[in-house]
Amino acid sequence: MRERCRAHGVQLRPHMKTMKSVEAARIALGATSGPITVATLKEAEYFADHGFDDIFYAVCITPDKLARAARLARRANRFSLLVDNVDAAEAVAVSAARESVQHNVWIEIDCGEHRTGLPPGDLAVIRIARLLSENPHTTFAGVATHGGQAYGAESTSEITRIAELERSAAVDAAMRIRNAGIACPNVSAGSTPTAVHGQSWDGVTELRAGVYMTGDLFQAGIGSCAMDALAFTVLATVIARNTERGQVVVDAGGLALSKDRSTAGHAFDAGYGRVLDINGNAAFGALKIDDVHQEHGEMHAVSPAVLDKLAPGTRVRILPNHACMTAAMYDRLHVTIDGSGAIAEVWDRVNGW
Amino acid sequence: MRERCRAHGVQLRPHMKTMKSVEAARIALGATSGPITVATLKEAEYFADHGFDDIFYAVCITPDKLARAARLARRANRFSLLVDNVDAAEAVAVSAARESVQHNVWIEIDCGEHRTGLPPGDLAVIRIARLLSENPHTTFAGVATHGGQAYGAESTSEITRIAELERSAAVDAAMRIRNAGIACPNVSAGSTPTAVHGQSWDGVTELRAGVYMTGDLFQAGIGSCAMDALAFTVLATVIARNTERGQVVVDAGGLALSKDRSTAGHAFDAGYGRVLDINGNAAFGALKIDDVHQEHGEMHAVSPAVLDKLAPGTRVRILPNHACMTAAMYDRLHVTIDGSGAIAEVWDRVNGW
Repeated sequence: MRERCRAHGVQLRPHMKTMKSVEAARIALGATSGPITVATLKEAEYFADHGFDDIFYAVCITPDKLARAARLARRANRFSLLVDNVDAAEAVAVSAARESVQHNVWIEIDCGEHRTGLPPGDLAVIRIARLLSENPHTTFAGVATHGGQAYGAESTSEITRIAELERSAAVDAAMRIRNAGIACPNVSAGSTPTAVHGQSWDGVTELRAGVYMTGDLFQAGIGSCAMDALAFTVLATVIARNTERGQVVVDAGGLALSKDRSTAGHAFDAGYGRVLDINGNAAFGALKIDDVHQEHGEMHAVSPAVLDKLAPGTRVRILPNHACMTAAMYDRLHVTIDGSGAIAEVWDRVNGW
Repeated sequence: MRERCRAHGVQLRPHMKTMKSVEAARIALGATSGPITVATLKEAEYFADHGFDDIFYAVCITPDKLARAARLARRANRFSLLVDNVDAAEAVAVSAARESVQHNVWIEIDCGEHRTGLPPGDLAVIRIARLLSENPHTTFAGVATHGGQAYGAESTSEITRIAELERSAAVDAAMRIRNAGIACPNVSAGSTPTAVHGQSWDGVTELRAGVYMTGDLFQAGIGSCAMDALAFTVLATVIARNTERGQVVVDAGGLALSKDRSTAGHAFDAGYGRVLDINGNAAFGALKIDDVHQEHGEMHAVSPAVLDKLAPGTRVRILPNHACMTAAMYDRLHVTIDGSGAIAEVWDRVNGW
């Protein structure tokens, strides 16, 4: 992703919401502590604790979080907030004055995801940019957008099209702001699928992608990465095997795997996760977890040949549908490097809020 | 639940998998540290740390967990394991001898859930009971079953029928063991729905229910508790409101609420959770979270009257579909008692494995 960004002449601001790990951030950035994106204030605090000083909290800020945000602004050289309405921008400016901090603030642009953000042509964009530029306690950082609708794309060409919507919406908003005589230094875009399949990022200054660091079954399914590039598995043990029912049960259920079913309804549907052997090989065909209870995962209609290989006590690795959701169930990551399965490093994670 | 069990003349062994909290266990048991059920060894260790000494780890044990189980057996007076096959029973006995501990061991009976466990009439039940009774390092504790199929019941009368299947399967297995000349001291059954709707627990000595402590939308939906008895909510703040789209976005997404969709396909489908006002009142009709991203929850087709009440910054409470899954996203519980919303106590939880 770093090379892809370099080729496009844009900065990578990796989104740490999947990994939530300092070690992963350093690898993503090439052994530096460069700019990052976070999804929670707790992530921001954790990365600030570890010397990261350019942290973009890329969820629109609410008033109840401003005191905590001010503490972050005092600690990190460049801690940034996101807003999508005038009231929020005013609340940020008032809080910054009261707390005697300078807030870097981005405006969220909606490029078609229709989650949060303003359409590029909305006059509020200019009003907010002006407010943030003129207020002595705020610095207008730029515009940011997220082509999250790419997750629903049916083909890589559709993802490419959405990437262009993402680029053009962000650049359009920046242009309108600049035409109003306001400097718009940064233009931020990106999700993993659009960062991978975007053809041009002209006018964009940075990309925020995150799940690319490990990939998952959903990302492989929509073409963001190859199946053999998935880095994240859940280690589980067979609890029970019922040859009559063709059923195998492992000690990884809804909590260990998450209840994410993002692959549902796709040709690449993998239940609650695809089951590999202990070495990470697809030794059991398309075997998947068909049903989960809190601590049990069930495989159904398992062939006699595969049943033979899955005696109680056998260890397996399960590829998750959605790395962000599954990783959040763990407070650390066990890192294997050489294919032996030996744990080379243990990385802490920061869950919660 | 304590009163219900007392009326039936059975012991309550509350399942701590939902609350994972010492304070909750003490309330469930009536201020004692009586018998409990746990779903992970980490829960067992946490409760042993807090003086609980009758702990039943009610997931079939696998060989890789036996060293850890032995440490628990040394610490808790009565730490119990579960098995459903002869190999596992033998592995437990071998480990107990090697580790110089005495293991209390239950046999899991399948009463129709078809997850793990042996049918009551399976000859392996007698073989395992004999092995556990005769081996000097194991104590045969009894038989345990779980009518988890009650979660799929369409009516309370069906739950009552499943409760009777649960009771009769466990009692049948115990009788067969006793007829073989082996003492079977305990007969354990129960899930929240069957514990609530079971008419008779004759022959059963204890019930293991857990989610009844807080309830959730699914349990209310299937009739385990009333909607106004739900004790667990996620506190969230409105991030954005789009009156044109009739959309409200809160800062509680797939991580804060879990991706559990157990109410899907039911008349009581509540999306990813039902939205209440800050006081816990259903002030917004049937408003629910329709879609989640990692940190965003979206409500769609919100009426103009409700939109008026949900300006950005407004705090709401969200009832979860499945308390066990949602609670697992938090490392502590904020307890309110008097309806004021003031936090009276903070309870730690033990997540992970």
